Amino acid sequence: MSSRAKVEIINFGDELLVGIRANAHLEYLGAELARYGLPVRRARVICDAPEEISGAVEAALAQSDLIITTGGLGPTSDDLTRETIAESLGAALVYDTAVEAAIRDYFRVINRPMADHHRKQCYVFKGGEVLPNRKGTAPGLYYRTQGKTVVLLPGPTQELRPMFEGEVIPRLRRDGYLSETAAYIQLRTCGCGESSIEARIQPIVEAEPDLQVAYCAHYGIVDVRLSSGAGYLQPADLERIAQAVATECGEDFFCYGAGSLAEVVHRKLRETNGTLAVAESCTGGMLSDAFTNISGASKTFIGGIVCYSNEVKVSQVNVPESILLQHGAVSPECAIAMAAGVAESLSAHHGLSVTGFAGPEGGNKKNPVGTIHLGYHSPAGVWSKTVRYTGGRLDVKARAVHAALDWMRRELYK
Amino acid sequence: MSSRAKVEIINFGDELLVGIRANAHLEYLGAELARYGLPVRRARVICDAPEEISGAVEAALAQSDLIITTGGLGPTSDDLTRETIAESLGAALVYDTAVEAAIRDYFRVINRPMADHHRKQCYVFKGGEVLPNRKGTAPGLYYRTQGKTVVLLPGPTQELRPMFEGEVIPRLRRDGYLSETAAYIQLRTCGCGESSIEARIQPIVEAEPDLQVAYCAHYGIVDVRLSSGAGYLQPADLERIAQAVATECGEDFFCYGAGSLAEVVHRKLRETNGTLAVAESCTGGMLSDAFTNISGASKTFIGGIVCYSNEVKVSQVNVPESILLQHGAVSPECAIAMAAGVAESLSAHHGLSVTGFAGPEGGNKKNPVGTIHLGYHSPAGVWSKTVRYTGGRLDVKARAVHAALDWMRRELYK
Repeated sequence: MSSRAKVEIINFGDELLVGIRANAHLEYLGAELARYGLPVRRARVICDAPEEISGAVEAALAQSDLIITTGGLGPTSDDLTRETIAESLGAALVYDTAVEAAIRDYFRVINRPMADHHRKQCYVFKGGEVLPNRKGTAPGLYYRTQGKTVVLLPGPTQELRPMFEGEVIPRLRRDGYLSETAAYIQLRTCGCGESSIEARIQPIVEAEPDLQVAYCAHYGIVDVRLSSGAGYLQPADLERIAQAVATECGEDFFCYGAGSLAEVVHRKLRETNGTLAVAESCTGGMLSDAFTNISGASKTFIGGIVCYSNEVKVSQVNVPESILLQHGAVSPECAIAMAAGVAESLSAHHGLSVTGFAGPEGGNKKNPVGTIHLGYHSPAGVWSKTVRYTGGRLDVKARAVHAALDWMRRELYK
Repeated sequence: MSSRAKVEIINFGDELLVGIRANAHLEYLGAELARYGLPVRRARVICDAPEEISGAVEAALAQSDLIITTGGLGPTSDDLTRETIAESLGAALVYDTAVEAAIRDYFRVINRPMADHHRKQCYVFKGGEVLPNRKGTAPGLYYRTQGKTVVLLPGPTQELRPMFEGEVIPRLRRDGYLSETAAYIQLRTCGCGESSIEARIQPIVEAEPDLQVAYCAHYGIVDVRLSSGAGYLQPADLERIAQAVATECGEDFFCYGAGSLAEVVHRKLRETNGTLAVAESCTGGMLSDAFTNISGASKTFIGGIVCYSNEVKVSQVNVPESILLQHGAVSPECAIAMAAGVAESLSAHHGLSVTGFAGPEGGNKKNPVGTIHLGYHSPAGVWSKTVRYTGGRLDVKARAVHAALDWMRRELYK
């Protein structure tokens, strides 16, 4: 089996189609498989109707080599995936008493009886492998037929991820699906539009006939993904090209891979034993959250104050009332006072602040909705910066967080 | 065109397949279309290769009535959607000088010249309609052929959403796709597992032969979606059934639709002119963020303190050092001190706090990774509650935020 196996993901669940839930499984599985040189080629999201399930699985069997499904293995009556796929594969379902024992054990630990409807989760494909579920009830299933592999994973994230890492990856390696080199190199940039980045790196791209370049812009970040079109470029070639692209992007380039701006700031602070505190108004905790998503963040991140009301800006961050009266809470002056004040209050070397109107309410003539003032205090001084965005409340918040992080990153690298 | 038109979404973009980005477009479009009685039946995610694009569009044309695509309309060379779909549809591409004028206007406003590579965005389908883009350069395209409708939307969120609301929805209404009643009713519950909810409402479900029920669990929330299988149940029937389900779920039921726990808490606080402040350790801003995602949150939400270090717990939230020394920062005693302290520091009626080990580092024998202590202070008193979760750092954070919000909701409704 070559590393060019065609991989398809099928996510089952009405909730993914009617806007109840984002499809985090595709994001996770896509990233994991790409790490092993096995990029996902196509994906489908399918509602829980049996004819849709079988239609999707049969189309996937005709087009793809490795098919991974998520969801539909639960104990409730709308969970029909196991039965329907068994029929599409022509595989018999057999009752597995070892699975029943594992489910009984699971319930014993959480001190509840095993309800009867969990018995349907004990049926497995005859001739297939059972993937134990250490975090829930439904086991996964791994089935090979006519040179194709079909993997069924449970829907809950906390069950799916350990099963994929612990049970699926070793089997994919055994069956020859995995190479150990990533199929692409990604560079992350911030501060320059998608088409401007393309124009800047055009001379590099034109010199490499087999180079494929893809761009993706999200909330001010532009990712540049480099891969080999026909497979002529070796990993060393891609690395050389990626270095040239990084050099060309200059300080707009901030990392390889899928790291976050907060991680880059955190790492740079660690080098100097620097610490950071943040004060946020309109971003309401999202900036703090970006840091605390990093395991080990406490080595640099002291804490944050969400000073949503003016009273909290005064009492917790020491913004002088005169600034609020003269310039208002949405002003460069207030942003500076917040950054310096939070660094002092929380005894941090660096202070970063955001104040603005995220919308849809608020805003005035001088500072319309979407106007964001950033403040940055460091041992070397204190500065403000003003940015303006269109879009809904959540978009403006996300862009403001990126703008603040990117600004601080650049200052740290100066 | 009946409201049973088959709807398919195709999202283009390598970044959605290799884990760089979650597919927020499907979530948004699915929710919007469901609101108008037009649930999405299937969705595909396709990489930017021309043969994959044409394969997906041709399969969709054979199976579905309304096809909405996102992405691939940008100015860079990997944006091939427009050209490839034109070929699949047999539609000619013609240069539209009105689109060029609109792009020039767009760049005039942001004070930059229009680069040559934007000329490719001026090509439109002959015989189709052009959907103006007020937030970016690429117009959308709306094309009808042989009783099918194909809509091409640009990838950036801030361009896609206003275009969908302002340009696509009116045309779908004109062309008879929309009904004005939602196709399902959703109830949100918290505090009870998926299979237990099913067991509780089973008598109601069994009495309705045409009722379809779907369940979706996410971070402690279980959604129950009720719809009519064969279309016999009228909106009034679904409402009656939904009320019976809500009554059966009791205080585990918290809202209809897709509202958040934070919104329910915010609304209840507004009724009594109550205000809230939060203190977070391991959730790091996520609890504050849940409130500040609500437009108008400032009417009840005063602010929050992310007290990641012990020093900040003492200096900003007035946690007595003796509590930290005797019980540690991850303890019910500290959670109570944080809740009472933040309410006092920020002059709020209510204080809500979270402290725990989100992992993967930290934890001890008494409080292993995943242990979360919540604190709640109200005018009536102060309480703590301890919960424990498995899963990764981000999972534990998300579940802890839901647990805190759900607990406060129940206390407010007592």
